[in-house]
Amino acid sequence: RRCGFPEVVYGEGKTVEAIAAVFDEQHARGEPAMATRVSPEQAEALLPLLSGATYNQVARILRRESHPGRPRVGKVAVVSAGSSDLPIAEEARETLDWMGVAVTMVHDVGVAGPHRLPERLAEFEDADAVVVVAGMEGALPSVVGGYLACPVVGVPTSVGYGANFQGLSALLSMLNSCASNVTVVNIDAGFKGGYVAGLIATRAAAGTEGRRDA
Amino acid sequence: RRCGFPEVVYGEGKTVEAIAAVFDEQHARGEPAMATRVSPEQAEALLPLLSGATYNQVARILRRESHPGRPRVGKVAVVSAGSSDLPIAEEARETLDWMGVAVTMVHDVGVAGPHRLPERLAEFEDADAVVVVAGMEGALPSVVGGYLACPVVGVPTSVGYGANFQGLSALLSMLNSCASNVTVVNIDAGFKGGYVAGLIATRAAAGTEGRRDA
Amino acid sequence: RRCGFPEVVYGEGKTVEAIAAVFDEQHARGEPAMATRVSPEQAEALLPLLSGATYNQVARILRRESHPGRPRVGKVAVVSAGSSDLPIAEEARETLDWMGVAVTMVHDVGVAGPHRLPERLAEFEDADAVVVVAGMEGALPSVVGGYLACPVVGVPTSVGYGANFQGLSALLSMLNSCASNVTVVNIDAGFKGGYVAGLIATRAAAGTEGRRDA
Amino acid sequence: RRCGFPEVVYGEGKTVEAIAAVFDEQHARGEPAMATRVSPEQAEALLPLLSGATYNQVARILRRESHPGRPRVGKVAVVSAGSSDLPIAEEARETLDWMGVAVTMVHDVGVAGPHRLPERLAEFEDADAVVVVAGMEGALPSVVGGYLACPVVGVPTSVGYGANFQGLSALLSMLNSCASNVTVVNIDAGFKGGYVAGLIATRAAAGTEGRRDA
Amino acid sequence: RRCGFPEVVYGEGKTVEAIAAVFDEQHARGEPAMATRVSPEQAEALLPLLSGATYNQVARILRRESHPGRPRVGKVAVVSAGSSDLPIAEEARETLDWMGVAVTMVHDVGVAGPHRLPERLAEFEDADAVVVVAGMEGALPSVVGGYLACPVVGVPTSVGYGANFQGLSALLSMLNSCASNVTVVNIDAGFKGGYVAGLIATRAAAGTEGRRDA
Amino acid sequence: RRCGFPEVVYGEGKTVEAIAAVFDEQHARGEPAMATRVSPEQAEALLPLLSGATYNQVARILRRESHPGRPRVGKVAVVSAGSSDLPIAEEARETLDWMGVAVTMVHDVGVAGPHRLPERLAEFEDADAVVVVAGMEGALPSVVGGYLACPVVGVPTSVGYGANFQGLSALLSMLNSCASNVTVVNIDAGFKGGYVAGLIATRAAAGTEGRRDA
Amino acid sequence: RRCGFPEVVYGEGKTVEAIAAVFDEQHARGEPAMATRVSPEQAEALLPLLSGATYNQVARILRRESHPGRPRVGKVAVVSAGSSDLPIAEEARETLDWMGVAVTMVHDVGVAGPHRLPERLAEFEDADAVVVVAGMEGALPSVVGGYLACPVVGVPTSVGYGANFQGLSALLSMLNSCASNVTVVNIDAGFKGGYVAGLIATRAAAGTEGRRDA
Amino acid sequence: RRCGFPEVVYGEGKTVEAIAAVFDEQHARGEPAMATRVSPEQAEALLPLLSGATYNQVARILRRESHPGRPRVGKVAVVSAGSSDLPIAEEARETLDWMGVAVTMVHDVGVAGPHRLPERLAEFEDADAVVVVAGMEGALPSVVGGYLACPVVGVPTSVGYGANFQGLSALLSMLNSCASNVTVVNIDAGFKGGYVAGLIATRAAAGTEGRRDA
Ligand SMILES: Nc1ncnc2c1ncn2[C@@H]1O[C@H](COP(=O)(O)O)[C@@H](O)[C@H]1O
Ligand SMILES: Nc1ncnc2c1ncn2[C@@H]1O[C@H](COP(=O)(O)O)[C@@H](O)[C@H]1O
Ligand SMILES: Nc1ncnc2c1ncn2[C@@H]1O[C@H](COP(=O)(O)O)[C@@H](O)[C@H]1O
Ligand SMILES: Nc1ncnc2c1ncn2[C@@H]1O[C@H](COP(=O)(O)O)[C@@H](O)[C@H]1O
Ligand SMILES: [Mg+2]
Ligand SMILES: [Mg+2]
Ligand SMILES: [Mg+2]
Ligand SMILES: [Mg+2]
Ligand SMILES: [Mg+2]
Ligand SMILES: [Mg+2]
Ligand SMILES: [Mg+2]
Ligand SMILES: [Mg+2]
Repeated sequence: RRCGFPEVVYGEGKTVEAIAAVFDEQHARGEPAMATRVSPEQAEALLPLLSGATYNQVARILRRESHPGRPRVGKVAVVSAGSSDLPIAEEARETLDWMGVAVTMVHDVGVAGPHRLPERLAEFEDADAVVVVAGMEGALPSVVGGYLACPVVGVPTSVGYGANFQGLSALLSMLNSCASNVTVVNIDAGFKGGYVAGLIATRAAAGTEGRRDA
Repeated sequence: RRCGFPEVVYGEGKTVEAIAAVFDEQHARGEPAMATRVSPEQAEALLPLLSGATYNQVARILRRESHPGRPRVGKVAVVSAGSSDLPIAEEARETLDWMGVAVTMVHDVGVAGPHRLPERLAEFEDADAVVVVAGMEGALPSVVGGYLACPVVGVPTSVGYGANFQGLSALLSMLNSCASNVTVVNIDAGFKGGYVAGLIATRAAAGTEGRRDA
Repeated sequence: RRCGFPEVVYGEGKTVEAIAAVFDEQHARGEPAMATRVSPEQAEALLPLLSGATYNQVARILRRESHPGRPRVGKVAVVSAGSSDLPIAEEARETLDWMGVAVTMVHDVGVAGPHRLPERLAEFEDADAVVVVAGMEGALPSVVGGYLACPVVGVPTSVGYGANFQGLSALLSMLNSCASNVTVVNIDAGFKGGYVAGLIATRAAAGTEGRRDA
Repeated sequence: RRCGFPEVVYGEGKTVEAIAAVFDEQHARGEPAMATRVSPEQAEALLPLLSGATYNQVARILRRESHPGRPRVGKVAVVSAGSSDLPIAEEARETLDWMGVAVTMVHDVGVAGPHRLPERLAEFEDADAVVVVAGMEGALPSVVGGYLACPVVGVPTSVGYGANFQGLSALLSMLNSCASNVTVVNIDAGFKGGYVAGLIATRAAAGTEGRRDA
Repeated sequence: RRCGFPEVVYGEGKTVEAIAAVFDEQHARGEPAMATRVSPEQAEALLPLLSGATYNQVARILRRESHPGRPRVGKVAVVSAGSSDLPIAEEARETLDWMGVAVTMVHDVGVAGPHRLPERLAEFEDADAVVVVAGMEGALPSVVGGYLACPVVGVPTSVGYGANFQGLSALLSMLNSCASNVTVVNIDAGFKGGYVAGLIATRAAAGTEGRRDA
Repeated sequence: RRCGFPEVVYGEGKTVEAIAAVFDEQHARGEPAMATRVSPEQAEALLPLLSGATYNQVARILRRESHPGRPRVGKVAVVSAGSSDLPIAEEARETLDWMGVAVTMVHDVGVAGPHRLPERLAEFEDADAVVVVAGMEGALPSVVGGYLACPVVGVPTSVGYGANFQGLSALLSMLNSCASNVTVVNIDAGFKGGYVAGLIATRAAAGTEGRRDA
Repeated sequence: RRCGFPEVVYGEGKTVEAIAAVFDEQHARGEPAMATRVSPEQAEALLPLLSGATYNQVARILRRESHPGRPRVGKVAVVSAGSSDLPIAEEARETLDWMGVAVTMVHDVGVAGPHRLPERLAEFEDADAVVVVAGMEGALPSVVGGYLACPVVGVPTSVGYGANFQGLSALLSMLNSCASNVTVVNIDAGFKGGYVAGLIATRAAAGTEGRRDA
Repeated sequence: RRCGFPEVVYGEGKTVEAIAAVFDEQHARGEPAMATRVSPEQAEALLPLLSGATYNQVARILRRESHPGRPRVGKVAVVSAGSSDLPIAEEARETLDWMGVAVTMVHDVGVAGPHRLPERLAEFEDADAVVVVAGMEGALPSVVGGYLACPVVGVPTSVGYGANFQGLSALLSMLNSCASNVTVVNIDAGFKGGYVAGLIATRAAAGTEGRRDA
C-alpha cells in the first residue's frame, strides 16, 4: 500500500534462525529488512548468514538494504538532549535511513543549556518532522515544538535516576507538553519515533492532493 | 511560518474579556480564531461580542473563521470507539475544520464489535492521517494502525470506571501499541490529536520536496 | 468433589525433595500431578526420580499423568498475540491438557495484524471457553470477546517495555474490556487462565441440570 | 449464536430517547432488553414509555422481559462481604435473572466474621459458578474459592477509604488470589461479574459434548 | 533567631476566631502576621476584626504589616509559565513582600513560547533567587536554571488535565531537572517557594561572613 | 526503661567489623545482641569472632544470648500463609525468641485452604498477640483477626508475581482489613512484626496496673 | 471472649433504623454500643431514639455506655501533630473511652516544632501504648517511638495537599519508620488506632501469665 | 557569571576518554573539575591520566582542584540519618568542598534516636544552609527545619525496603514537610543537594546588596 514499509523484526529474545528467516523472505520479495533490539551476540551470529547486512551496535539495529544508494525522500531531524540519550536517537536515525528519509542529527541540546538549541535551529527548521529524544525532565520536545511549526514526535528515554521512575518523568512531561504540535511514543521507543516521523516526511515529500483528485 | 496556525485559546477558567481580546486581535490580523474548553456560560456571553463566531456545545469549542468557504486541504479521519467518546472526537473534528482540513467521521466502531470497523474502512483508507479516540481499554488505535499505513494519532479518553483510573488504562494501551504507526497525545486531548493530524495532512497535501529543492 | 482437581505445586524456589514428595503422594492416590514454574535445573533433578513424568521447558511445567490416553473432555482455545507470549500460552495449554481438556492453539494473531484473527476463527468458534494471552496493549481479549459469545479468560503478559510497566498496561486493558464476556487473571498467570477455562469446559461438557435434579 | 445474549445498554449519561430506542428495537426482535447504570431520574422518564419494563433502584438496572415466567436454567450464587457491597451484588443478580439463570443470594459473610460463610455453604455448594462481591481487603473470593471447586468470578468494589484507593486494594487481592479457580472483573463491575457467571452456568446446564459430536 | 520569621497560619478550615487570635498575639509582639489559603468568606469576616490587615483574593493571603514602608532587602524574581499559574505565583509574591524582600514578577513565559523568556531575562538576572511556578510539563525551572547561576526554587502546579495527574507531571519534571541549581517544593506550594527564596535572599543581602567572624 | 530492648543491628551492607563492634559493646554491658538481614557470607566471617553467637540462615539473623536458658515470658503465635513466607516468619520467631517470649509456629494455613486454620486455632487462641505473615492477597490477618480478640500484627510479604507489585497487594489488603484488631508493618518486615508482638506480650505478661498505682 | 468488645457499627451510609437496631440489641445484652462515621444528620435522628446515647461531632461517633462510671483500665496516650488532625485523634479517644481505657491527649506537637514534644513527654511516658495521629510527612510516630519503649500505633491522616496524595505520604512514612516499635493502620483510621491501643492496654493492665498458668 | 561554577561531569556510563577530555579543557581554563557517579574502575583508569586528581570511593566523585588551599567561603552542614545514607552525604560533602565551602558533617542522627540531633545542634546552628540526607521515613529535614531558621535542602535516599519503593517514601515526606524552610531534590541526589546549599552559602557569605547597588 502507498507509503507502506515491510514489517520490522523486534529482535529481543528471538533466535538467530527466526530472524534470518524473516530477512531471507523479505530479500526474496525485494524488500529492505530491519531488526531492532538486536544484541551484539545475535548480530555476530547473523552477519555471516546475511550478505549485505550491517549492524549498528549503538542503535542495536541490523539492516539489509533492498536498493542501496536510492535517493533520499523527505527530511527529518533527530534532536537529543544529553549524551546518554544517544542509543535511542541512533535507533530513530537508523530507522529513518532504512525508510530512505534524509536525517539531520542534532545532539546534546538539552534545556539546561538553553543557548545551544537556538544556535542550531537553522540546520533543521525546514524539516518535515522532528524526532526529539530526551530523558530526565523530558522538556526538550516542548521547546522544539515552540520554535518550529511541524509535527514533533517526542521519545521519552529511561535516562535518569530516583524520581525518574524509569522514564515516567519524561513520558508525563511530553504528554503534558503545552506545545500543540507534540505527540508521544513509548519510553525508549526510538524505532517508533523514527518510523512515524518517516511516515510523515514521506507523505509530505510526495504530496497527496494531486493523486487523490486524479 | 509555513503551515503555522495562530495560537489557540485554552478557555478553561479564562474571563470573557480575556478571550474576546484574543479573538479581536486575531481578527484584526486576518487570522481565524479558536478557543477550546469553553463552557456554555462563557459562550453565551461571548457570542454577542464576536460577530461571525460559532459555538459547538458538544466539542466546547468557540470559533471564528477568517476566510469562510475556503477549499479543504488534505484529508483526516476521526474514528471513535463508543458513544461516550463523542465530545473528544468532536473537539478533534472542530480543530481540523478550523485548520481547513477535510474530515471524515466514523463513530462507534470499538473493538468489542470487531465487524464494524472493516465495514467502514473504505470511507477513510486514503486519509493522510487518522485520529483515533477511545476510552476503556483503548485498543482501537492498534487495530486502525494495523489496517492502514498512514500515521495514527491516538487520543485516550477518560471514559470508563474502576480500574480505568481516569483514562490511564487507555493511555497505557496506546503507548504500548504493537502497531508501528501509532503516536499518542494526552488523555481527553481531542484538540491536540486533531491539530497534529491536521499538520500532517496539510504537509502531505502540499508536498515539500519541490519547494525545498527550489 | 465434583470437577475438583488435585492441588498443583508452585515450583518456584521449592526443593527437589519437596516437589518429589507431593508427586509421590498424588501418585499413591492415583491422581495426576503437576508443578508449574519449574526451572530446567529442578526438572533435570526431578525427572530421574519420577517415572512417567514429562517436562515442557517452554511452559516450565512438570507433569505426571494418572490415566494416560483417557479421552478429552470439553474444548478450549488458547489464543496468543505475539511470539513472546508463547511461554505463557504454553503454560495454559499444558494445564488444560493435564485436566484432560481438548485444546486448540492459535498463535500470533495480535490486533496490529487485524486480518489474522478472523481467518482463524473457524478453528475455535465452538470452544466452551477461550484463553487469550497478550502483552503490550493487551487488546486481543476484547476482539476475541467481540467475535465469540463464550467466556473469555484474559491473561495479560509482562511482554513489552517502557510504559508497559511489567504488564500493567495489558492488565488494565483487559479489566476495562468493553466486551462483556471477558474476565481476567494475574499478569503472566498462564496456569490460572488455563485452569479456569478448563473448569468451565469440563462443566459445559458434562452438563449439570440432569445431575442436580436427579 | 448459541448462548448469546442481546447487547446491554450502558445507561450512564445516555439520553432517555437513546435508551428507549434500543429497548424498542430489541422488543421488536422479541429480545429481552436491559440497561445498567440507569439513574432514578432516567428511570422515571423511561418507565412510562416502555410498557412491561421494571427498575431496580439499588442495582440501577432497567429491564424488560421478552418471555416472562420462562424456566430458570443453571444456578449461580452471588456472595457478598458487607452491606455496602449490596448495590453491586444486586447489579449481578439482576443481570443473572435477566439471563434466565437461577440465583442464590448470600449476604454479609465477609472474612472478618469467619464463622458466617461455612454456615451458609450448603445453600450454594452445587452452583455452576459463584460471583463474589467484596470491597476493602477483597479476601472473600479466595475463601469461597478454597471451599468450592467451581469457577469463582471476583468483583472488587470501591467500598472502603484511605489506602483502599477506590477499590485498588480489593482488585489487587483478587488478582493475587492463591485459589486457582478465581478470575476477576473491573472494580464495581457487578454486571460483568453476573454476565460471565451466567455464561458459565447456561453452558454447564446445557452441556456441549452431545451437540458438538452430533 | 537570625533571619527567622514568625509562624504563618495555614488558614484552610480554621475558624475566624482561631486566625484572629494568632494575628492579635503577633501584633502584640510587634510582629507581622500572615495567613495562607484564606477563603474570601473567611477574609470578609476577619478584615473588620483586624485593623490594618489586607487580603489578596488571587493569592488567598491575609496579611498585617508590623512596620509598613520599611525598605526592601534582597531581590527575588517570581517567574510563571502560564496564566493559570497566577494564583500560586501571587501566593509566592505576597509571602516575599511580607518578608520584606523586593520582588520582580515575570508572567507567561512558558517553554512553548521559547522566545519570551530570554527577552525578559535582563529584568531579573541579578536576583538572589528565583521562584519558578509552572504546571503541565513543568519545564520552566530547568530553562531558568540554565540561564542563571543563582538558586532556583521550582513550584509545580496542578494546572493541566489527563496525564498531569494533579501536578505529578510537573513535580517529577522539576525533581529530574538537569539544571544543578533547581530545588523543588510541594505541588501548589507558592507560600513555601516564596518563603525559601526569601530566606536565601535575605541571607545573600546581609552577608554572613562578617557577622560569624565577629 | 521498662520492657526496653537493646538496639538491633540492621546488617544489610554493614562490614564485619562494624557488626562485631556492636555485639562486643552489648556483650560488655551484659545485653543480648542481634543483627538482622545478615548474609551467610557475613555470618561465616562473624561466627568465629563472636563466641556464643548463633546464625539462622533462613531468618538471616545472627544472635548472642545474654542469659541463655532464662524462662519465657508471654506468648505469641507466628502464623504464616504459604511455604514461601517462611523466611519472614522465621525472622519474626527469632526476634521473639531473642526477646525471651514463648512462640508457637503455625505454618501453611493460607485462606485458599480455609479448613486448615480452624483446625489449628486451639494451639494459639490464648496468645497475647499474633504475628500473621502472608504474601499474595494477604488475607490471612483478617481471618485470624476474625477468630481471635487479641492484637494481630500483619506482616505483608513480597511473595507473588505480576499484579502483586513486590508486596503492595498484601500490604493494601492488610491496611484495609475489616477486622478491627489488625495493624500492619512494612513489607517483609518480619523483625518489626515480631518485635511489636513481643512488646505487647511482655507487657501483657507483666501487668502494669499494680506498678503504676504503686 | 477475654478482652473481647462488641462489634462497632460503621455508620457511613447506614439507615437510622439499621443503626438503632444494633444499639438496641447490644443494649438488651448489656453491652456498650458505638457507631463511627456518623453524620450530624444521622445523629440528630438517632439521639431521640436511643436514651443515654451521646454524640461527639468532631469525632463523628455515637455511643451508649453499658456501665457508666466504671473505673478506667490501662493507660493510652493519643498524640497528634497538627490542629487539622484533631477529628481523627478524637475518633481514637472516643474509642478508647468506650473501651474503658484511661486516655491522655497531647495535641499539636508535630516535628516542625521539635521542642514541643519533649516538654510534654512526662504526661504519657508510663502509657501502655501510644496512638500517634499525623498527616503531611507523618514523621511523629518515629519520634515518639524513639522516646518511648512501648508499642506505638501510627494513624496517618489525609491532611495535606499536592504530593500528599490523600495521606499516602504519611502512610509510607509510618510504614518505613526506623523506630522498631511502630505499627500502622489505614489512613484516617482513628477508630482502629484507638481500638488496637486499647487492646494492648487492657491486656497490659490485666496481666496474663497468672491466668494462663492457673 | 557571578557565583557560577564550571559544569560537572555525570560519569555514569561515560568513557574514560570523554571524562578526561572535559577535565583537560577545564584545567586549561584554570577551572576546578569534578565528575560524579564515577565507578572505581573508571577512576582507576583516569587517575594516572589526570595529575592532581583525587577519587573518593564512597562518594564516587573524582575531582581536580584549580587552586588547592584557597580559603573556605560560607558554611554548610551535611546532616544524615543512618549509616547507609553515608555515600549520598559524602557526595554532598565532596561537592561543597569542591565549591570552596566549609562543611560540617553530622552523621547518624535519625529521628528514631531523638536525643542525638539536639546534642549536636551547636556544631551547625550558624550554618548558611543545611543539607539533610535521609532514607526510610525521611523525617529528618522537618526536624532540622524546626530547629533552625536557615534554608534546608532535603535529599531523600533510596535506603530501605518494602513500602519504601526505592526512596518514594522519603521523597514524599520531604515534599510534605510542615517546616516552611525545607526544599527537596531528587532521590539520591547528593550532588544537587550539596550544590544548591553551596550556592546559598557563597551568596550569604558574599552579600549582594553592596554589589548590586554599586
Ligand atoms: N523496538 C521496537 N519497539 C516497538 N515495536 C517494534 C520494535 N521493533 C519492531 N517492532 C514492531 O514489532 C512488530 C514485530 O514483532 P514480532 O512479530 O515479535 O517481531 C512489528 O509490528 C514491528 O513494527
Ligand atoms: N455496567 C457495565 N459495565 C461494563 N460494561 C457494560 C455495562 N453495561 C453495559 N455494558 C456493555 O457496554 C456495551 C454497550 O455500550 P453502549 O453502546 O455505550 O451502550 C455493551 O457491550 C455492554 O455489554
Ligand atoms: N500554604 C501553606 N503550605 C504549607 N505550609 C504552610 C502553608 N501556610 C502555612 N504553613 C505552615 O503551616 C504551619 C502552621 O500550621 P497551623 O498551625 O496549622 O496553622 C507553619 O509551620 C507554616 O509555616
Ligand atoms: N530488619 C529490620 N527492619 C527494620 N528495622 C530494623 C531491622 N533490623 C534492625 N532494625 C532497626 O534498625 C536500627 C539500626 O539500624 P543501624 O544503625 O543501621 O544498624 C534499629 O532501630 C533497629 O531497631
Ligand atoms: Mg549535556
Ligand atoms: Mg457502543
Ligand atoms: Mg508478531
Ligand atoms: Mg458486616
Ligand atoms: Mg500562555
Ligand atoms: Mg500452601
Ligand atoms: Mg501547628
Ligand atoms: Mg542508626
